[in-house]
Amino acid sequence: MPAPRLYVPGLDPRPQRISLPEGESHHVTRVLRLRPGDHVRVFDGAGREWTARLAPSERPAPARIEHLEEVSAVPEPAIRVTLAAGILKGDHMDAVIRDATMMGATEIVPLSTEFVTVPQKAWQGTAALDRWRRVAVASTKQCGRAVVPEVGAPSDLTAIIRRHSSSAKLMFVEPSAERPADFLSDVKAPERAALVLIGPEGGWSATEVASAQDGGAQLVRLGPRTIRSDAMAAVSMAALWAVWRA
Amino acid sequence: MPAPRLYVPGLDPRPQRISLPEGESHHVTRVLRLRPGDHVRVFDGAGREWTARLAPSERPAPARIEHLEEVSAVPEPAIRVTLAAGILKGDHMDAVIRDATMMGATEIVPLSTEFVTVPQKAWQGTAALDRWRRVAVASTKQCGRAVVPEVGAPSDLTAIIRRHSSSAKLMFVEPSAERPADFLSDVKAPERAALVLIGPEGGWSATEVASAQDGGAQLVRLGPRTIRSDAMAAVSMAALWAVWRA
Repeated sequence: MPAPRLYVPGLDPRPQRISLPEGESHHVTRVLRLRPGDHVRVFDGAGREWTARLAPSERPAPARIEHLEEVSAVPEPAIRVTLAAGILKGDHMDAVIRDATMMGATEIVPLSTEFVTVPQKAWQGTAALDRWRRVAVASTKQCGRAVVPEVGAPSDLTAIIRRHSSSAKLMFVEPSAERPADFLSDVKAPERAALVLIGPEGGWSATEVASAQDGGAQLVRLGPRTIRSDAMAAVSMAALWAVWRA
Repeated sequence: MPAPRLYVPGLDPRPQRISLPEGESHHVTRVLRLRPGDHVRVFDGAGREWTARLAPSERPAPARIEHLEEVSAVPEPAIRVTLAAGILKGDHMDAVIRDATMMGATEIVPLSTEFVTVPQKAWQGTAALDRWRRVAVASTKQCGRAVVPEVGAPSDLTAIIRRHSSSAKLMFVEPSAERPADFLSDVKAPERAALVLIGPEGGWSATEVASAQDGGAQLVRLGPRTIRSDAMAAVSMAALWAVWRA
């Protein structure tokens, strides 16, 4: 079994012993039932990672770690990808967040679009955002990254395109889309950053496609088959990294 | 709403009216509650597709269709991919079958490997195979293909490699794998057929990797992050099509 990976945001490695945040403390002592001396890994969510050992501690004090040794973290992609995805219902949106994290997205933004069917009260406010951020943390632990991608508050298409004026912008459209779209092999690797737009279950409206193009987005299609919207984060990013050789 | 896609294996389009198989008949009349004259699509699972209309019929006779007009089906990939995947537990294996179908696999083979943790009685026999085949049919309907990929009976690594002696053989290994592996960009497009091997949750044993290499398999890695095994079908195939420009 590889050592469990613990997330300690803003970790300062200098103290001899470091207390774990409450959730991680509970996890190592009650769920994993680790003992003093057991090996763990800790990462700070901003790109640094250490091996460490569980230190002796007395409940109810939080578990502590000691003997930190910095290790080289899994490298982040050279191209910063913001994945903006039409909001899907509960577990499907979780899959998008989980997969985008695993595929190396730097930022993930839930998009409110014309064909989103999830009621606004289900995705507006802190409860949904907190949940998505927890999903991103869990996926970060699993995939080995030392950086937790930022999950932004829900945005709309116009705002996200304006905010990414200096990035390459790609909008994935369905095989049935009426506007001509490029094949994936025509998508040049951006120098530094890309905004990748994927639609909700019903796809994009004609107005949305037109306004994205006006905003500088390149329309892209993946192939002749219809890809489920909950799989599009994994599929589109896997294809882009492959084409970009990144 | 696009017209629902019905699967009628071995459909002969010549009769004026064609009875639907029991499951599809139930689905159109009881679940979708279609009426005579409503539009449907039918495909034969072997690459042909038609538009049609629901014909009048009297229960308990099965629903019938009429006015078939052949349409051009979604094209199949020029490269035949057999995806052989280490057996995962229930819903994760369903995800592999569903995704491999959506990504255009010609054949899907569940693999019994050293690190498979699912007990043999859960995957041997017709119940599991029937379930996987139903998942493949459902995914075929959803993704728009007119060909249902074959889901083979569980195999082992030696047998599947021997059976695909004339195909290009690719084994995806984890970022932590000890043997040197090629990057995806070094994977040349095969002329006609490829066997793609993805492991179960625990990956491959050293013996399995060695024997696959002896059998002519190229080891491939996807990048520095660990991809969940239930996502590997979608991720590996999306990456391969992108690299092969297929």
